[in-house]
Amino acid sequence: MAANTFGEVFRVTTFGESHGKGIGLIIDGCPAGLDVDLDFIQSELDRRKPGQSKIVTQRHEEESFMVQSGIWEGKSTGTPIGIFIPNSDQRSKDYEHIARVYRPSHADFTYQTKYGIRDYAGGGRSSARETAARVAAGAIAKLILKTIGVSIHAFVSQVGHIKVDLSQPVNYSNIETNIVRCPDELIATQMINFIMDIKKAGDTIGGMVTCIIDGCPAGLGAPVFDKLHADIGKAMLSINAVKGFEFGSGFDCVRMRGSEHNDAIIINVNGNIITKTNHSGGIQGGISNGMPINFNVAFKPVATIIQGQQTVDMDGEATIAEGKGRHDPCVVPRAVPIVEAMAALVLADHFKKQNNQDVKVFAYL
Amino acid sequence: MAANTFGEVFRVTTFGESHGKGIGLIIDGCPAGLDVDLDFIQSELDRRKPGQSKIVTQRHEEESFMVQSGIWEGKSTGTPIGIFIPNSDQRSKDYEHIARVYRPSHADFTYQTKYGIRDYAGGGRSSARETAARVAAGAIAKLILKTIGVSIHAFVSQVGHIKVDLSQPVNYSNIETNIVRCPDELIATQMINFIMDIKKAGDTIGGMVTCIIDGCPAGLGAPVFDKLHADIGKAMLSINAVKGFEFGSGFDCVRMRGSEHNDAIIINVNGNIITKTNHSGGIQGGISNGMPINFNVAFKPVATIIQGQQTVDMDGEATIAEGKGRHDPCVVPRAVPIVEAMAALVLADHFKKQNNQDVKVFAYL
Amino acid sequence: MAANTFGEVFRVTTFGESHGKGIGLIIDGCPAGLDVDLDFIQSELDRRKPGQSKIVTQRHEEESFMVQSGIWEGKSTGTPIGIFIPNSDQRSKDYEHIARVYRPSHADFTYQTKYGIRDYAGGGRSSARETAARVAAGAIAKLILKTIGVSIHAFVSQVGHIKVDLSQPVNYSNIETNIVRCPDELIATQMINFIMDIKKAGDTIGGMVTCIIDGCPAGLGAPVFDKLHADIGKAMLSINAVKGFEFGSGFDCVRMRGSEHNDAIIINVNGNIITKTNHSGGIQGGISNGMPINFNVAFKPVATIIQGQQTVDMDGEATIAEGKGRHDPCVVPRAVPIVEAMAALVLADHFKKQNNQDVKVFAYL
Amino acid sequence: MAANTFGEVFRVTTFGESHGKGIGLIIDGCPAGLDVDLDFIQSELDRRKPGQSKIVTQRHEEESFMVQSGIWEGKSTGTPIGIFIPNSDQRSKDYEHIARVYRPSHADFTYQTKYGIRDYAGGGRSSARETAARVAAGAIAKLILKTIGVSIHAFVSQVGHIKVDLSQPVNYSNIETNIVRCPDELIATQMINFIMDIKKAGDTIGGMVTCIIDGCPAGLGAPVFDKLHADIGKAMLSINAVKGFEFGSGFDCVRMRGSEHNDAIIINVNGNIITKTNHSGGIQGGISNGMPINFNVAFKPVATIIQGQQTVDMDGEATIAEGKGRHDPCVVPRAVPIVEAMAALVLADHFKKQNNQDVKVFAYL
Repeated sequence: MAANTFGEVFRVTTFGESHGKGIGLIIDGCPAGLDVDLDFIQSELDRRKPGQSKIVTQRHEEESFMVQSGIWEGKSTGTPIGIFIPNSDQRSKDYEHIARVYRPSHADFTYQTKYGIRDYAGGGRSSARETAARVAAGAIAKLILKTIGVSIHAFVSQVGHIKVDLSQPVNYSNIETNIVRCPDELIATQMINFIMDIKKAGDTIGGMVTCIIDGCPAGLGAPVFDKLHADIGKAMLSINAVKGFEFGSGFDCVRMRGSEHNDAIIINVNGNIITKTNHSGGIQGGISNGMPINFNVAFKPVATIIQGQQTVDMDGEATIAEGKGRHDPCVVPRAVPIVEAMAALVLADHFKKQNNQDVKVFAYL
Repeated sequence: MAANTFGEVFRVTTFGESHGKGIGLIIDGCPAGLDVDLDFIQSELDRRKPGQSKIVTQRHEEESFMVQSGIWEGKSTGTPIGIFIPNSDQRSKDYEHIARVYRPSHADFTYQTKYGIRDYAGGGRSSARETAARVAAGAIAKLILKTIGVSIHAFVSQVGHIKVDLSQPVNYSNIETNIVRCPDELIATQMINFIMDIKKAGDTIGGMVTCIIDGCPAGLGAPVFDKLHADIGKAMLSINAVKGFEFGSGFDCVRMRGSEHNDAIIINVNGNIITKTNHSGGIQGGISNGMPINFNVAFKPVATIIQGQQTVDMDGEATIAEGKGRHDPCVVPRAVPIVEAMAALVLADHFKKQNNQDVKVFAYL
Repeated sequence: MAANTFGEVFRVTTFGESHGKGIGLIIDGCPAGLDVDLDFIQSELDRRKPGQSKIVTQRHEEESFMVQSGIWEGKSTGTPIGIFIPNSDQRSKDYEHIARVYRPSHADFTYQTKYGIRDYAGGGRSSARETAARVAAGAIAKLILKTIGVSIHAFVSQVGHIKVDLSQPVNYSNIETNIVRCPDELIATQMINFIMDIKKAGDTIGGMVTCIIDGCPAGLGAPVFDKLHADIGKAMLSINAVKGFEFGSGFDCVRMRGSEHNDAIIINVNGNIITKTNHSGGIQGGISNGMPINFNVAFKPVATIIQGQQTVDMDGEATIAEGKGRHDPCVVPRAVPIVEAMAALVLADHFKKQNNQDVKVFAYL
Repeated sequence: MAANTFGEVFRVTTFGESHGKGIGLIIDGCPAGLDVDLDFIQSELDRRKPGQSKIVTQRHEEESFMVQSGIWEGKSTGTPIGIFIPNSDQRSKDYEHIARVYRPSHADFTYQTKYGIRDYAGGGRSSARETAARVAAGAIAKLILKTIGVSIHAFVSQVGHIKVDLSQPVNYSNIETNIVRCPDELIATQMINFIMDIKKAGDTIGGMVTCIIDGCPAGLGAPVFDKLHADIGKAMLSINAVKGFEFGSGFDCVRMRGSEHNDAIIINVNGNIITKTNHSGGIQGGISNGMPINFNVAFKPVATIIQGQQTVDMDGEATIAEGKGRHDPCVVPRAVPIVEAMAALVLADHFKKQNNQDVKVFAYL
């Protein structure tokens, strides 16, 4: 039922398990003639890859990728783009100790129940490794969006109790200058130290990623089921470990009055229609209004901890799940490019859909 | 692009504007042989309808519906179920004063930009009236879910600063005993008084709806894009005025450690595998685990207020949007059945999808 | 599973049974701003309606339709267009004699097997009455196609052994001048007389409809699964009573050599690239080449005959199916507008899809 | 727009060009627990591969395949099955002579018009090489169908003017005993000799493939757009070089009377409901009736001939297309496994869809 496909016009289908031969994807619907910058795709994969700093998993996975189709002399041909990312580290014996044990807050029990079979090595499709395919696809979506001036910046806004003041302007150029990907240098240092303490304790910690989309033209989205923020929300909630999504005023809106929440509409110095405030988060009635789109995504603490935990095995016997392996103490630094990639997939798809809207435009004639 | 269709196997397509002839829907994918209780559909529509109490809009809309196809002698036939809900109150002159003005935090400007044309009367497809179609479809989804023991209860958990203590068990039978649909009688009274004050001030207030799904079998959902909570999240975010969605531990997870957040797995007295806590909110790795599914939905204050607001008109001239009309001071009491309906649509769809999973089962042979 | 939906970008969903309240449809994906000529829709429905001449069924069905949404002041709004066509003649007692009998070459037995339930009156969704919804939707698709100069003409090319010489040019203006819709006046008269003889004998006869699409721009379609002729073929085969589809050289190609079949490419007097012959039928590699698209559709003789036939009933007992009711002796005269409508739906859908192809075109900006 | 995806529940997406790194596919929707016989997949690919006999192209392509995901210890896991078939022979210089020339009756001109870009080597996605991916996917579909007793046999029934008498029973065991895949040994020899003559003349010849599906249970399909034969028809028409499709009585029905065409219904010796004749071709009202499903597919002569042909180049200048390369003189012997594969994809998809039909069956509980 298309459960491994995302998008309608710009459409990505992924496959592959964490500890098989590799993961891959097909993009169907990339228009012809796009300059596909392979170095950019690689740089995006590198932002997600394990082992990139002391605060992420020390597992080393090469994220080299192979384009298998759809690109000819540097340009997209309009046909499906196939990409394969081989797994460099297929040590499934790392997982044999959990082959018959349901790890708490992992997908082991639910996966077994759903399929009646479990490829236990690395969690099968539940592994976060699958998100490498999303990042590769998202990189191509970003290249499309760049042609119309859309840019997407995500960053870590909270780790545990340490948080950025989101009422202040964000300096995007600071995001990639530190390993936690937080634009506030001071807060970044606190976050890094806190994550190192958590790691030493064999524990993990939750966090939040904030994302801002600039340059999105007004008119993207739809008024009913496929509201732009509903599709962005689904995209975010489909990322591993996400427990919540809010955009614009978000959950704060619950306490607000209409007179306070409504965004007055004004004409700016360039003669454009903008809003004075942006509680709407750049989207009104499910359709973009040209203001920055902003949203927050809540990530739970990683379920793998280096502590014994109460659980049961496949025979229904009580047992202890032992924590082993090389895992992230906090998922948000590596989640930043994934959030951006999923946002890019949604926007590229809605952008192409909007081309269908106007009866008077016959784009290709 | 199917922007007015929701679901894949159990699939709903809606049409109709707020102030046209009526709204309607087609359900394609309802299995044959379901007993369709028309009175139940009506009772669900009545929970959503305007004018039902002093704290909602005093606009009176009859929510009678006509089944146009797909039901024969009280049972579904397996063919599309067509339902039409005529509009009883088509006073589009109520809206002439806003025909050329973009109301702040409404969809007027975005709609005009998207379509290049605007059916201004009542907001076209952006009107919350469209949700009546969802409630009718959701009622049929609930009838399917009932046959496997799934029940869905939503309620108002917060209005402005007044909130229910969600750490306490919820008494479902109290929900419909008060007009604000809050299961805590004392809090309900405070909420009602507060909403009446807001209404007198010509203002509106935000609120939160909490939903609990009991009896959902383990195994529904998918591990990648179509995670059960991702589809529920999209469903909720597609409801008018929603700004945020969280499930299980939700945004609180950001501050939590793995050792605290993980749900230990145990065997209960009936020999079933359950979890000790339920921070996972009944879903692990995108697949239901048999525990109650719970989530919160944040609703912004209604945009229509009885106050003049700074805005521009279609000619780009600064003007004042005057507030008129009969609108809800707080949307959450009437949002309760909509939240339930959308949850039911997602579950019915995933339930039917799961029938396709097992190669050994040939249901119809 | 979307079994009642046709198309992807220009997308039609139908509902309704032959002898219920009526039939209806939703068009999702009609672009905004189209002038919707309601009289034209009515005239198309009139071409399909029963009782229009002595050679079709004498059942009288009014084909009045109601637009329920999506059109505002004569123009499409970009939102779903809902149309309802009430049934004027709901005499389900006409069908009581066949309630428990499986009529030969009807869908009675298969329908019962599929759904486990049967709305026997008029055949439920299997009734050709459902095609009225297609004709209404197709009329709107034709209006879109007209804006880019595409015209579609279908006609009756064969009835029984009587056939038109398809190697001669077709005079479209003759098609609607006779009741059998055959452009060759002499052949038309022979067909009409032959159908009258068949009718008197209580029998029915097969026929063929030929369709020519002029003005289709090159570039519509896709090279793999969604070849333009594959989608047209599916559209035709989804019409009741159709047993075969061929385009261009069709089944004659089986006997031909490549040197004879290949269409040499030349430049015409206007400097356009055309082909000397058109064995390709206007489509090469699944994509239109700008030449006329032509195809033939074979219709079997109507299954209802006024003769007793050997069959079994729902208890598995041998019995005789008695022929009653008012049915068409030959289906092709009324099939002409249905063939055109389905062709229009395919082309409008592929036309809108093609807008998504070029990365350099941002239609709506 | 999903133009490279086929099916809904059992869903195949393909990618890859003829002369790139290879071609591949993802199956999404294969149920978990299926025994996947890799040798069978290989044997199906071998039936399609070039160079297998003197009457097909002498190009040698290894059709080895790699399973990249979705199979674990010999069984499907319910997750996407990724398969890659590397290209062994990437001589794109073979094609440089046609880089700027539009070959008659090839997709060169239409492809260029559609995408504004052309990967000329081997025809990009228009190459018949893409069908190897279909055969691999079809092999897995056949394994599913085998579990319910469905078998599919295609064979060559006509080459040029030489044809099999289809009114006689077919001996399936003879099909693979000769290189033309014709079950009548005498006719087979005539076909082979004829194809050899055609080849020597540098020409090509059309042909017909007939397919019979035995053991299909009644109840598969749908009554409106997704009629079983409409989906089979689209599947066949999506195969390269196909110009026509007919099932059951096919185009012969045009000359038949209802009294002659209708299939009388009887009870056979096992007490099953069958029909006396099978003009319906195993499908009535779009739904299978349990009788053998049979259909014919017309293939045009291959467009590449070893003769100079009149055409134009990309500058619009008249020129001669020279025939070179190693191509099939007649496509039907290698088309036999492709026809079977596409039929298997349609049936597996409809079979899984039917599981959703009955409200009383909860397959997975």
